[in-house]
Amino acid sequence: MVVSLEKHVCHDKKAKVPDQQLVFGRTFTDHMFVADYTAGVGWHDLRIQPYQPLTLDPSAIVFHYGQTVFEGLKAYKSPNGMVRLFRPNLNFERMNESCQRMSMPAIDPEAMLESLIELIKIEKDWIPTAPGTSLYIRPFMIATEGYLGVAPSQKYKFMIILSPVGSYYKEGIAPVKILVENQYVRAVAGGTGTAKTAGNYAASLKAQEKATEEGYSQVMWLDGVERKYIEEVGSMNIFFKIDGKVVTPALNGSILDGITRRSIIDMLRYWEVPVIERRISMEEIREAHRTGKLEEAWGTGTAAVISPIGEFKWQNELFYVNNGQAGELSSRLYDTLTGIQSGQLPDPFGWTIEF
Amino acid sequence: MVVSLEKHVCHDKKAKVPDQQLVFGRTFTDHMFVADYTAGVGWHDLRIQPYQPLTLDPSAIVFHYGQTVFEGLKAYKSPNGMVRLFRPNLNFERMNESCQRMSMPAIDPEAMLESLIELIKIEKDWIPTAPGTSLYIRPFMIATEGYLGVAPSQKYKFMIILSPVGSYYKEGIAPVKILVENQYVRAVAGGTGTAKTAGNYAASLKAQEKATEEGYSQVMWLDGVERKYIEEVGSMNIFFKIDGKVVTPALNGSILDGITRRSIIDMLRYWEVPVIERRISMEEIREAHRTGKLEEAWGTGTAAVISPIGEFKWQNELFYVNNGQAGELSSRLYDTLTGIQSGQLPDPFGWTIEF
Ligand SMILES: Cc1ncc(COP(=O)(O)O)c(C=O)c1O
Ligand SMILES: Cc1ncc(COP(=O)(O)O)c(C=O)c1O
Repeated sequence: MVVSLEKHVCHDKKAKVPDQQLVFGRTFTDHMFVADYTAGVGWHDLRIQPYQPLTLDPSAIVFHYGQTVFEGLKAYKSPNGMVRLFRPNLNFERMNESCQRMSMPAIDPEAMLESLIELIKIEKDWIPTAPGTSLYIRPFMIATEGYLGVAPSQKYKFMIILSPVGSYYKEGIAPVKILVENQYVRAVAGGTGTAKTAGNYAASLKAQEKATEEGYSQVMWLDGVERKYIEEVGSMNIFFKIDGKVVTPALNGSILDGITRRSIIDMLRYWEVPVIERRISMEEIREAHRTGKLEEAWGTGTAAVISPIGEFKWQNELFYVNNGQAGELSSRLYDTLTGIQSGQLPDPFGWTIEF
Repeated sequence: MVVSLEKHVCHDKKAKVPDQQLVFGRTFTDHMFVADYTAGVGWHDLRIQPYQPLTLDPSAIVFHYGQTVFEGLKAYKSPNGMVRLFRPNLNFERMNESCQRMSMPAIDPEAMLESLIELIKIEKDWIPTAPGTSLYIRPFMIATEGYLGVAPSQKYKFMIILSPVGSYYKEGIAPVKILVENQYVRAVAGGTGTAKTAGNYAASLKAQEKATEEGYSQVMWLDGVERKYIEEVGSMNIFFKIDGKVVTPALNGSILDGITRRSIIDMLRYWEVPVIERRISMEEIREAHRTGKLEEAWGTGTAAVISPIGEFKWQNELFYVNNGQAGELSSRLYDTLTGIQSGQLPDPFGWTIEF
């Protein structure tokens, strides 16, 4: 695979932000990866170039019809100074599934992973090392053809940008408060809920605003048909520990198939903790809470890894979980998974790659 | 209101495309209108400038989380040489409703209409005059802040671009064939279906591809909950004439509130043709077809104005309407509405503005 590296005449490196001052998604590194797609030609001009603005026609399809997909993963620096990635192949495979739903061209997952590794090698000094920090990786694809007809674009750009990040949630591993959303819907089977595409996130902003106003940090989505069954939380999948067993909503055609979710399920099975993927109603959560069986709840996602949940608000009811404290299993999952990801703990699953 | 006009040093005008060769959405005029929004400041730097590419950071929210809304309307040249717009205030008002749903800042509809008129005056020579042609107007707003957090942008651009267009549908006023979609869903109550936002259109591409492959020109969406009730068609609202009465799906929280739809309802009432907004199931259409009462069907939208429907395919059944011919009422509606819009007919409703 040929990735050209643009020479940096007059390209000053940016000053790095100290690890302690890092937030999420505001600082970007010196370079980015770009590839262009033209219908009939395929992907071409794979290149690593200085991080720079994009120039697009105002009629570019991405601005009007939102044909775009993205991914999110993280790189860590191991104690031995190597760079570690967590199951990156799954991100590129999921991107292809998103592309399929959005009528966008497939990428070659292996080639893209190689390109990502090349890019990270150049940006290695940008990986922060303080606990909880990492280099957030954002691969994304946008439709660039200038055309106002509602039709799949004939041209795309695939890009990878890198952002050193602190902890996603200001609250850190401390439990978050979740508002169960009854009015707005994120996705419905037959829609785009299983794809990591822009419109799903745009659709979520209004409910998130409402939650923030009420002092809750994230929204929990219910199904769009009966408004009864639990789907996911903000940009996380959700797990409950009820009466010693772990349950998580089954992938039903409107939930994102989270890579952290899959990894948590595998880890629980490895530990021989029973875990079941099935439909879970809010009534069931209320009942488990009432009978004292709602032992733990947590969200899973690349940004937060594990985010214990201390409280749910559903209509006018409040359900506290584990007295608003992080539960034992959530904490163990967090410590083990972040340990594997960052290279502090051994990886019995073969999930990480190092270079 | 202060709109600055950038001087055109070295700005060559583009060659115009002959009216007969115009298609939809591929040619743009020499200028565009742009305004910037900054949280805490509001809208600023309203300007008309040469049509030119946009420069945005790769992390701009529009690329990742699709925070964007748009509108579509048309300008015609009257027989007397004046420019005519059709109910443009409704487009800017609807844009504000879309913005509300998408957590985006409101615009001032009157100021934006003034800006549009200034822009069109400069671009007057671009309005084509051949029958069926017009100047398509695309106001749109995009989130421009560079930030990867899922949150409403603190910066936006509002723009208006202009495109001289031929007829939207290659088939012209000839009836189109519609595929009723059973697998994919456009929108559901609580989602973003009532907003003119990018994600809804991205979500529709896959079903449209399937329809095109099967030889159908548009998709008809059913409700996302029961998959029984008719919502709308591609980018049109839908009407049926059944047993002498006109029916159209009621605005139920997932359908776009079309301006052509509203105008058609008003026109029918003016003509004293009964018209009812209510829930319509596919079963009802099948039954009306079986008993010979399905007299006409047509879509309504800015692009096509009226698009008679000659055939529906639902699962494995085919329903022909009026022997695949344009019906009398559809044709009368088309002739009257396009007559009013283009200034060939008087406008008893006061819908058009001329300048
Ligand atoms: C809507 C949504 N759900 C769940 C997740 C969790 O997925 P993953 O574990 O792959 O990060 C994400 C992504 O972070 C998401 O955007
Ligand atoms: C989804 C959808 N439905 C219906 C319409 C019709 O609306 P209008 O008559 O305002 O053009 C449009 C816009 O053209 C649309 O995009």
